[in-house]
Amino acid sequence: MTTDQIYSEIKRKGSMLCVGLDTDYQRIPECVRAGRSVPEAVLEFNRRIIDATAPHCVAFKPNLAFYEYLGTEGLRILEKTVEHIRLNHPGQFIIADAKRGDIGNTARMYAKSYFETFDFDAVTLSPYMGTDTVTPFLEYPGRFAIVVALSSNPSAADFQTVQGDGKPLYRSVIERMMEISSPEKMMFVIGATKADKLKEIRGFCPDNFFLVPGVGAQGGSAEEVIQAGSNAKGGLLINSSRGIIYASPGEDFAEAAAEAARRTATL
Amino acid sequence: MTTDQIYSEIKRKGSMLCVGLDTDYQRIPECVRAGRSVPEAVLEFNRRIIDATAPHCVAFKPNLAFYEYLGTEGLRILEKTVEHIRLNHPGQFIIADAKRGDIGNTARMYAKSYFETFDFDAVTLSPYMGTDTVTPFLEYPGRFAIVVALSSNPSAADFQTVQGDGKPLYRSVIERMMEISSPEKMMFVIGATKADKLKEIRGFCPDNFFLVPGVGAQGGSAEEVIQAGSNAKGGLLINSSRGIIYASPGEDFAEAAAEAARRTATL
Repeated sequence: MTTDQIYSEIKRKGSMLCVGLDTDYQRIPECVRAGRSVPEAVLEFNRRIIDATAPHCVAFKPNLAFYEYLGTEGLRILEKTVEHIRLNHPGQFIIADAKRGDIGNTARMYAKSYFETFDFDAVTLSPYMGTDTVTPFLEYPGRFAIVVALSSNPSAADFQTVQGDGKPLYRSVIERMMEISSPEKMMFVIGATKADKLKEIRGFCPDNFFLVPGVGAQGGSAEEVIQAGSNAKGGLLINSSRGIIYASPGEDFAEAAAEAARRTATL
Repeated sequence: MTTDQIYSEIKRKGSMLCVGLDTDYQRIPECVRAGRSVPEAVLEFNRRIIDATAPHCVAFKPNLAFYEYLGTEGLRILEKTVEHIRLNHPGQFIIADAKRGDIGNTARMYAKSYFETFDFDAVTLSPYMGTDTVTPFLEYPGRFAIVVALSSNPSAADFQTVQGDGKPLYRSVIERMMEISSPEKMMFVIGATKADKLKEIRGFCPDNFFLVPGVGAQGGSAEEVIQAGSNAKGGLLINSSRGIIYASPGEDFAEAAAEAARRTATL
């Protein structure tokens, strides 16, 4: 996928929304759980959430932790979830939320995993170990590395905002990653709970897409994010997970998710 | 497992060696590949490497990237590899080399994955997103978080050694993690390609175990590491992966791996 294709979907749908598929069996409505094994229920829940929210979003983001803990069966569900999106909702951008980051030969295997074994368009990466942990992901045309720069969790400030060489660590990360890549290969995770930071970062990083978590359950506002972080191509994928997929615990869970997505998506 | 148990194995075997199971099908000897599917060959190779090297090492470290890229089957092989070690080589410390790091609710799922779904003793973690990405792993008695502080890859210096608040980032990471944990819960990854740094870090972090990669294929020396990084309890797990498991491409691969392990292990 190219950023132009993503942008044309954003314009067509009037939405920058990415729906995070952090599917926790404990929170799946009883009507989906009844008569199904754990993996079957997770897959059925995902399919119904995807079909309901797809008209209101441009991306889906399965969170790998929620599939790995189901072991072998979990990966099968992940595979089938990606397949379901590809077959039924072409044009959706599919992100593996993995936060991986390891030395070159290991990074190459992770790139194979997400871009070949699984058919993801992008994968989130953690930058702590430096640029050579990212470069293997840049070798796939039309696929993206999404590097965590500033996250939305409380302890993000432990290290990411520490000043070094006269600037905060997140800025060093973004600038270094911009040197080794183009906006057609690289996006950044920038937490929505910090709209002022989003604006500052857009100042020195005008062209890359930002994946913005923290809207909804974590407290960030989509309007603020759009105002602070947009660029000429839209430039944002605004993620919400729990606020959408668990919008209702009842039989109307899919309709409630669609409505939550529609509300969050408004440009 | 407790650090006393690890130390007693180190003394008993005269070895601080951790064998990294970065099993790449392309490098498995033909005699193992013949007549076997890819996952079967990986599992058979692992079992024979484990049985051959176990007398000379105290830990095994499967690298999850090398199993994930095989998809569903890869996770089954990983599960069976851990099972094989538990059943046949009790006392071995088993590390999931995962380099995970994500917000609290996701970290809890990863902790479940590695400590419940799979039966690992420890998991490697990336600290970029701060302490709350680590705390869920500290809630399991007898299990360890192993936080990457200073890695052995060329681009480790991109961010890890940047000075902030008057000290390098890796030192901030270690000090912050020491505040939230005890040496019975927390180890650190310290790359062996930097023996001087290992000595410096031992100075302000006397009690925690260090997992030291970079010996062998990456160029570090085990003797230097032991001299620079040991403490009263040994305090080191020295990892070698490719230098041991691919010691010979022929039918003698298991004996060659045992011999390479024996040589690397010497205290």
